[in-house]
Amino acid sequence: MASNSDSNVTNRDAFRQAVVNTLERRLFYVPSFKIYGGVAGLYDYGPPGCAVKANVLAFWRQHFVLEENMLEVDCPCVTPEIVLKASGHVDKFTDLMVKDGKTGACYRADHLLKDFCKEKLEKKDVSITADKAAELKHVLAVLDDLSADELGEKIKEYAIVAPDTKNPLSDPYPFNLMFQTSIGPSGLSPGFMRPETAQGIFVNFKDLYYYNGNKLPFAAAQIGMAFRNEISPRQGLLRVREFTLAEIEHFVDPEDKSHPKFPEVSNLEFLMFPREKQVSGQPAEKTCLGEAVSKGIVNNETLGYFIGRVYLFLTYLGIDKDRLRFRQHLGNEMAHYAADCWDAEIECSYGWIECVGIADRSAYDLRAHTDKSGVPLVAHEKFAEPREVEKLVIVPVKKDLGLAFKGDQRMVCEALEAMSEKEAMEMKADLESKGKVEFHVCTLAKTVTIRKSMVTIAKEIKKEHQRVFTPSVIEPSFGIGRIIYCLYEHSFYTRPSKTGDEQLNVFRFPQIVAPIKCTVFPLVQNQEYEEVAKHIAHMLTAAGISYKIDITGTSIGKRYARTDELGVPFAVTVDSTSSVTIRERDSKVQIRVNVEEVASVVKEVTEGQSTWNDMLSKYNAPQVPDDE
Amino acid sequence: MASNSDSNVTNRDAFRQAVVNTLERRLFYVPSFKIYGGVAGLYDYGPPGCAVKANVLAFWRQHFVLEENMLEVDCPCVTPEIVLKASGHVDKFTDLMVKDGKTGACYRADHLLKDFCKEKLEKKDVSITADKAAELKHVLAVLDDLSADELGEKIKEYAIVAPDTKNPLSDPYPFNLMFQTSIGPSGLSPGFMRPETAQGIFVNFKDLYYYNGNKLPFAAAQIGMAFRNEISPRQGLLRVREFTLAEIEHFVDPEDKSHPKFPEVSNLEFLMFPREKQVSGQPAEKTCLGEAVSKGIVNNETLGYFIGRVYLFLTYLGIDKDRLRFRQHLGNEMAHYAADCWDAEIECSYGWIECVGIADRSAYDLRAHTDKSGVPLVAHEKFAEPREVEKLVIVPVKKDLGLAFKGDQRMVCEALEAMSEKEAMEMKADLESKGKVEFHVCTLAKTVTIRKSMVTIAKEIKKEHQRVFTPSVIEPSFGIGRIIYCLYEHSFYTRPSKTGDEQLNVFRFPQIVAPIKCTVFPLVQNQEYEEVAKHIAHMLTAAGISYKIDITGTSIGKRYARTDELGVPFAVTVDSTSSVTIRERDSKVQIRVNVEEVASVVKEVTEGQSTWNDMLSKYNAPQVPDDE
Repeated sequence: MASNSDSNVTNRDAFRQAVVNTLERRLFYVPSFKIYGGVAGLYDYGPPGCAVKANVLAFWRQHFVLEENMLEVDCPCVTPEIVLKASGHVDKFTDLMVKDGKTGACYRADHLLKDFCKEKLEKKDVSITADKAAELKHVLAVLDDLSADELGEKIKEYAIVAPDTKNPLSDPYPFNLMFQTSIGPSGLSPGFMRPETAQGIFVNFKDLYYYNGNKLPFAAAQIGMAFRNEISPRQGLLRVREFTLAEIEHFVDPEDKSHPKFPEVSNLEFLMFPREKQVSGQPAEKTCLGEAVSKGIVNNETLGYFIGRVYLFLTYLGIDKDRLRFRQHLGNEMAHYAADCWDAEIECSYGWIECVGIADRSAYDLRAHTDKSGVPLVAHEKFAEPREVEKLVIVPVKKDLGLAFKGDQRMVCEALEAMSEKEAMEMKADLESKGKVEFHVCTLAKTVTIRKSMVTIAKEIKKEHQRVFTPSVIEPSFGIGRIIYCLYEHSFYTRPSKTGDEQLNVFRFPQIVAPIKCTVFPLVQNQEYEEVAKHIAHMLTAAGISYKIDITGTSIGKRYARTDELGVPFAVTVDSTSSVTIRERDSKVQIRVNVEEVASVVKEVTEGQSTWNDMLSKYNAPQVPDDE
Repeated sequence: MASNSDSNVTNRDAFRQAVVNTLERRLFYVPSFKIYGGVAGLYDYGPPGCAVKANVLAFWRQHFVLEENMLEVDCPCVTPEIVLKASGHVDKFTDLMVKDGKTGACYRADHLLKDFCKEKLEKKDVSITADKAAELKHVLAVLDDLSADELGEKIKEYAIVAPDTKNPLSDPYPFNLMFQTSIGPSGLSPGFMRPETAQGIFVNFKDLYYYNGNKLPFAAAQIGMAFRNEISPRQGLLRVREFTLAEIEHFVDPEDKSHPKFPEVSNLEFLMFPREKQVSGQPAEKTCLGEAVSKGIVNNETLGYFIGRVYLFLTYLGIDKDRLRFRQHLGNEMAHYAADCWDAEIECSYGWIECVGIADRSAYDLRAHTDKSGVPLVAHEKFAEPREVEKLVIVPVKKDLGLAFKGDQRMVCEALEAMSEKEAMEMKADLESKGKVEFHVCTLAKTVTIRKSMVTIAKEIKKEHQRVFTPSVIEPSFGIGRIIYCLYEHSFYTRPSKTGDEQLNVFRFPQIVAPIKCTVFPLVQNQEYEEVAKHIAHMLTAAGISYKIDITGTSIGKRYARTDELGVPFAVTVDSTSSVTIRERDSKVQIRVNVEEVASVVKEVTEGQSTWNDMLSKYNAPQVPDDE
C-alpha cells in the first residue's frame, strides 16, 4: 500500500512536471520579473495563456452574464479602509504566521504543522506509535480550526523549527493578507488592494436595484483582479498574490429562493459530496441535482441552479467530469451567517482544489454595509392590498430608566429595543406577574433590574403597504487562474512521435478554449506556397479567426508537434496552390479543402456551427499522411 | 469677444452637465464607494459602461492584436521596486505638491498657478496691465517646464494661497504618484502598483523574442489596470487614480523602421499638428499621412503606420474626425531618448485631451533593464556571409595610468573607454603630434593630462558573423477610460419629445460600441405579447445578442426614450403574435418583421453583414408610427 501511494505521488509529480515544463516553455505562463529573480506568487501570462484566459472569460460572460441578463459592473481595486472594515476583512482576513527567530523569515504556522504531520505519517516513521499516528491524523483534521494559541502549543510540543535554517520559531500571530497602501498624498487615508471583487457590488446595491426596476431577484457580476499578500505562496498558479476573480451576487427574497429556470438543470447528475458523507467517511457520489434540492441536501433551488450552471460551465470548458465534485462546507468551515455553501472542487496533481465557491450568504453583507454606512440597502415588496400586520412595539420609558441607570440609560434602552419577539413577550409576562425582571445588557456586560414602569411592551395591529427587507445573497465566486490551471492538467496528454523515440505533448483544448484556432504551414519553403499561406492568413483575419503562420523550413512533423503543444485544433498545410490540407489535432486526420474555403471551414468548426465529423463526411477524409 | 468666449464656456459646461447627468443616472459610471462618501478619482462602471468598455476592448483586440498578430501578455499590477527603479519611475514619476500650512491639505502646485493665471486673464481684471497679461500668458506657456524652485517663486510672487482656506502654502516638493505597498509579510520588499503596463512587456523581451522565432519586428500588447495616486484628481473620468491601459510595444531594428503595411494607411488624411505649426502659432491642418512621413514630419514609417491605425480605430468607434488631431510633442515635452512622439488628442468639453500616445522611445527601456538586471535584452541579426567590420579599439595602459592617477585610475580608464569614435580619433591624432593631451573626466569633474604611453587607440578590421543590437521600441499607449469618455460626449445629442415640452437624450453609439444591441417591448401588458417577447429574447440569447426586455406598463414613447438614452440601436416592439416592429434609434424609422426573423435581422445589422438601409429596402419600411 505504502509503495503504491508513494508511486502515485511520484507519478503525480512527474505528470505535473511535464505539464508545467510545457506551459512555461511555451509561455502559457512564466514567473513574473524573471530577469530580476522573480517574485513568489506573481506570474505573467504569455501569448497562449493570455488567449486562453480571454477565451475563458468571454465564455463566462456568455454563459452567465448574457444568458441570465446579469448586471455587470467594474469597480476599482484600490479600496478605502472603511469598506473593508465593514466587510470584516480589516479585522479578520488573516493567516497565522511564525517568524524564524534569527533571520526573520516568515512561514504560515498551519503549513509547517501540516507538513510535519504529513511527513511523519507518510514516512511511516517507525518511532511513531499507533496512538501517535492517530493524534497526528486528528491534528490534520482539525488544522483549520486551531487558534493561534493551540497552533503555538503544537509547534512547541513537536519542536517544529524553521525549515530553511532549523532556527526556533516565534509564537504564531495573525498577519493581514491585504496589500495595504495609502490613498491620496496626505498619508491619512489608508486603503487596501481589494481581496475580492464582491464588496464593489454590495456597496452599489441601491443603484443596481433601481437599475433593475426595483425588482428582485437579480444578479450583478464582476470580473476583475483581486490581491492577497500570501505569507509564503506555493503550488504555482493555485496560490498567487494577484489573481482574476469572476463573481456573481444574486440578490433574492429570503422568503422565496425558488428559481424559474431550475428545471433546466434539475436532471443533471454529477459527483456531490454533502456534509454527512464527509463526516461519516463515505465517498462523494453521483447525485441527481433535482433530488439533492428536493431532499434538502442543497438548501434551496437558486443555490441548486447555480451549482448546475457551474457544472455546465466547467465541463464545457473541458474539465473532466470524473475529476470534478461539489463539496458542501462542514459546519465549522462556514461563516455563522451562511445558510449553505458548496465548493466546486477539481482534482489535479495537487489534490482536490477549490475552484468555485457557491454560497448562500444570507443578508450578512448588505446588513454589514447598511450598519456601517447608515444607507439602508434594502428591497421593497409593495402589497397589492394593504395588509394588517401584528407588530411588536417596545417603548422604553426614558425618564424612569434615566433615574435608575443614569449614564447607562442609553445602553439599557437599546438593549430593550433590540429584544426578539420571544424575549419581549417573556419579559412582558414576567413584568405583569412579578412587577420586575432581571435583564442582561450585553453592551454593559452586566445584569440590571427592569421594573414595570420602565418599559411598555405590546403587540399592535398595523396596516402595511409594503414589506421592507434585506435581500439574501447567493454568491458563486470563480478563481479563474485555478480553473485554467486545472484545465491545463486535464487537457494535457503525451503520445509517441512517429519514430517512437520521443513523447510529444498535446493539449486537447476544446475549440472555445484553444488559444489559437489554426496554424498555417507552407509544406516547403517556396514563394508560391508562401503567397497562398498569406492569402489564407488574410482570409482568416477577415473572418476573425486567430492563427499563427509558420514559414520556417522545419519538417512538417516538427511543426505539427509544435502546434499540438499549444493546443491548436487545426493545422492548414499548403502543399499546392489550389487546395490545401486541414489536419485535426487529436485524431491527426486530414481533409483536403479548396484554398478559398479554408477560412469558412475553420470558422464553422471552431464556432460550433458544424462539427469536425460533418467536415470529414463532406470532404471525404483521406488517411493520416506519411510525413507524420 | 469676451462675452462670446464666456458663453462658449457656459455652453460647454451645460453640455457636459447634460452628458454627465445622463451617464451617472443610467449607471454608465458612478463615483465609487458612494454610500461611504466616495473617494476622489475612483469610479465604478455600471452595466452599460461595463458593456461599452468590454466592446471597446474587444474591438481593440480585433483591430490591433489579431490583425497584426501581436503577442498579448498579462502581467501583475503589483511590481517590485527594482523594476520601477530601472524604468525611472521610483525617482522621477512625481508631481510637485504644496501643502496648506495649517490644515495639511495637498494641492498640485502647477494647477494652482495655472488657475490663478487663467482667472486673472479670463476675468480681464482691470488692474492688469498689458505687460502683466503678457507675463501671465508666458507663465501658462512654460508651466510644464518650471522647476520646483521656479514654481515656488511664482506662488510667492503672486501671493497664491490655499483655495479652500486662504492659508499660506508650503514650498513645492515632489510627490511620487505611485501607490506604494509591501510584498510579502516581512515588510522588507517594497512594491508599487504599476503606473503603466509597459514594463511587464520589457522585462519579458527575451522570452517574447524567442517565442517570435528570434525575429524582428514584432509587437507585444497588454491590456490591464494601472494606478496613479493623483494629488487632487479632477475632470471626472479623465484624471483618475485607477484606469485601464492598452499598450503596444512594437520592437524594431533601429536601422530599418520601414513597415510593409504602411501603404494601407498612407492615403489617410486627418488633422495633424506638427511641432513647427505649434511653435509658429499656426493651426492643425488636414494632412496626408504618406506625405507627412515622406517629408520627415513623422520620423518613420512604423510610427506613421501606427498613427494611421490609431486614427482608424478611434473613428471606427465613433470619435468625430473633426475633433481628433495628432499633435507632435515639442522638444521640451519629449524625453531626451525619444526619437519622435505624437499624441492622438480628442476635443471634448474639457478641451483637447491626450487619449493615445504614440512614441518612438528608441532603445531606452530595453537598455535600462539590461543595465539594471544584467540580462542582455538584445536582438541578433545573423549575416549570410561573415562581414569585415572596422572597429575602434581603445586599450588603456593600466600600469602607467595607475602611477599617474593612483585612486582615480579606474575613473580615467572608464572615461577613456567610453570615448566616441570622433573623440578617440582626435585624441589619437593629438597624442601622435603633441605626445600629450588634456582630457576631461566627467565622473571626477576634473581635467587630467593623458600621455602617449597611457593609452593605445587603433582601428582594427574584425570578422563578424552577426550583429547584436538593442531594438527600438515604438509604443502606442491607449487611455481606455479617456477614449470612452470622449466617445460619450461625441455620441450624445438631444432632440425634442413628440409633445415638444422636453428634450430627450440620445447616444448615437455605433453598433460595435452600443452596450446592449436591442430592447424588447410588448406594446401593452398582456400574456400573449409577453410570451412572444420571451420567445424573441430566447432567440436573441441563442444568437449571442445582448438585449433588455421591458415589460413595464410605461407608454411605448417613454420606453423608446429610455432605450435611446442607453444608446441601444434597435427596439423590438411586440404588437402582434406573428410579426413585430424593429425601430432604429436615430432615424426612429421602423420595419415590420416576422417574429422568427427578429434575431437574425438584429444579428446581421449589429455584426455588420448588412446595413440598416439593406433592411429598409428588404422590409419596405413604414412611416414613423403615431405613438412616438
